[in-house]
Amino acid sequence: MSRVYNFSAGPSMLPIEVLERAQKEMLDCNGSGQSVMEMSHRSKEYQAIIDKTEATLRKIMGIPENYKVLFLQGGASTQFAMVPLNFGTKNKKADYVTTGVWSKKAMAEAKRYITVNEVASSADKTFSYIPELDKSMFSDDADYVHITYNNTIYGTRYTSVPETKAPIVADMSSMICSEVVDVNKFGMIYAGAQKNMGPAGVTIVIVRDDMIGQANEITPTMLNYTTHIENGSMFNTPPTYGIYICGLICEWIDGMGGVAAMQKVNEEKAKMLYEYLDNSSMFKGTVVPKDRSLMNVPFITGNDELDAKFVAESKAAGFVNIKGHRSVGGMRASIYNAMPIEGVKALIDFMKKFEMENK
Amino acid sequence: MSRVYNFSAGPSMLPIEVLERAQKEMLDCNGSGQSVMEMSHRSKEYQAIIDKTEATLRKIMGIPENYKVLFLQGGASTQFAMVPLNFGTKNKKADYVTTGVWSKKAMAEAKRYITVNEVASSADKTFSYIPELDKSMFSDDADYVHITYNNTIYGTRYTSVPETKAPIVADMSSMICSEVVDVNKFGMIYAGAQKNMGPAGVTIVIVRDDMIGQANEITPTMLNYTTHIENGSMFNTPPTYGIYICGLICEWIDGMGGVAAMQKVNEEKAKMLYEYLDNSSMFKGTVVPKDRSLMNVPFITGNDELDAKFVAESKAAGFVNIKGHRSVGGMRASIYNAMPIEGVKALIDFMKKFEMENK
Repeated sequence: MSRVYNFSAGPSMLPIEVLERAQKEMLDCNGSGQSVMEMSHRSKEYQAIIDKTEATLRKIMGIPENYKVLFLQGGASTQFAMVPLNFGTKNKKADYVTTGVWSKKAMAEAKRYITVNEVASSADKTFSYIPELDKSMFSDDADYVHITYNNTIYGTRYTSVPETKAPIVADMSSMICSEVVDVNKFGMIYAGAQKNMGPAGVTIVIVRDDMIGQANEITPTMLNYTTHIENGSMFNTPPTYGIYICGLICEWIDGMGGVAAMQKVNEEKAKMLYEYLDNSSMFKGTVVPKDRSLMNVPFITGNDELDAKFVAESKAAGFVNIKGHRSVGGMRASIYNAMPIEGVKALIDFMKKFEMENK
Repeated sequence: MSRVYNFSAGPSMLPIEVLERAQKEMLDCNGSGQSVMEMSHRSKEYQAIIDKTEATLRKIMGIPENYKVLFLQGGASTQFAMVPLNFGTKNKKADYVTTGVWSKKAMAEAKRYITVNEVASSADKTFSYIPELDKSMFSDDADYVHITYNNTIYGTRYTSVPETKAPIVADMSSMICSEVVDVNKFGMIYAGAQKNMGPAGVTIVIVRDDMIGQANEITPTMLNYTTHIENGSMFNTPPTYGIYICGLICEWIDGMGGVAAMQKVNEEKAKMLYEYLDNSSMFKGTVVPKDRSLMNVPFITGNDELDAKFVAESKAAGFVNIKGHRSVGGMRASIYNAMPIEGVKALIDFMKKFEMENK
């Protein structure tokens, strides 16, 4: 078996230790005589798994007691509707910051239910930066402020939490658990698991107690956070196996020294790649240095044919899914928690070789 | 490793051949150097997996070309809202038949959006039968008729498709692919995968072309069938690993001779267990014989203490999750496709022994 370095934006690489454990436990988890996939979600065996997953996530993220943790389905795209339906009911108004395709989609869905104020946008320069934000820019009567903390497609990220008037709701899909975040600064955090936390099909929701209980009356029962809070994510059958894998990944992060330790490695990986890009005469990054993502590194040669050649040759050499998002082209290396530093070093070596051969 | 016989109502036993294949492919599927969990859903490798899953499901169920197949998230409980929001928009009225907890929940959610006519109910006798239905009982102006084809908790099932005036929408969560069904008789079929089709976290939707495109304007984008139809279940990241397991299970059913062959074995397993119950002086079934489920077999001793003793001793002997649903008590043996005939035989032998020892 020859494993590849997978630079996909998600689903993406998972820690090999997690895959090996899942493989070992596939037919019999913890002496239960069952695969986790076969366990009744109402069984003691499974309750222990979901409880441990939540406890480990709380530990590594430092989630305070006045926040609930939910394991839902439907991805961030379902949150785009759940957020305005659940939180946009007092003044029926919210502030949105536009930093890419996903924040635009979140805003478009919110507009179907509430009044939206677009506080700022980086659309003028192909979302290659995060707009400067000042407290005075936000509405006095917004029910919440929505931001996309890391922009997977464009490779930008917030480097600090903006000062706002209303509670911040943040899409952290592509950076959750990759760097230390002070959960107290947010009203609600959500993340599709398939980048840093597990397989596709699980959505992590972390929500402060005072945010809930005011859903719009048209909200489908399954899209009301209260439904899931009252039932410990078990109103109906949760995505049991996906949650189990999330739990193994949380344990892996914990074992690596926690999120602070992951952040250190992630900063090192990103620095190495950006430094190479800044010094290359062929490749260059597309994002302003101060807002560069630690997770998604887009780059170009400036020549579409050369880009295509690089994508094809890198794939043949075992660096897969390095093509940029179909909406922007070029290349993108997603270097999530599970991408080992050796993978980034090997990619840089390959890029150097390609640069030499294609002068 | 000692595998148990798992009689859970779902999630439940999966075919051992499927688990062994998933185990083998965990770190490297088809020479891709990746786990299916790690594959980009936009990659050729994954597209081949979802395409094959759909093709095999179409083959084994005989799904006609004018029906779309979707792989969604959120379980049957999310369908309870999607059905009225998507189909209940012409006359804003639908017929519901009440045959248990799940059909009641489906009806309650529909009532939040449309006018519901409860055509018939078996609530008078603890849902121990399926009401007789006649075409004249249905509304002339219903947009659709909702039925729960197999009632997991109570152990009843429809033995024929009722004659109705409007298209039938059927919850087949606990019997999909366990017996031959003429898809042409339904406007739409949905099923949570976690009983006969795969792991929790995938919802199968089979919908006739003319049913779609008329969603209520308040419908969240992710709850509109059109969103998913237009994007081949890939509007956002689908539950990729769960779909892969569903595909392996479809292939397994196909290899066993298809749904007709599964039905034959299921009828044999059920007949064996019901015959034993009908002849036992200790245990008895709770459902009228003509409406007995092939999948879920509830039974009681008539003595709560004896029931509890049986549940405890059967668990110790390797027959797990045989306790009845918390709302009805007693016992329930769920004998889905993946439960081998040896498991049913072993359970009957154990029941005979218990009967002898507790006379």
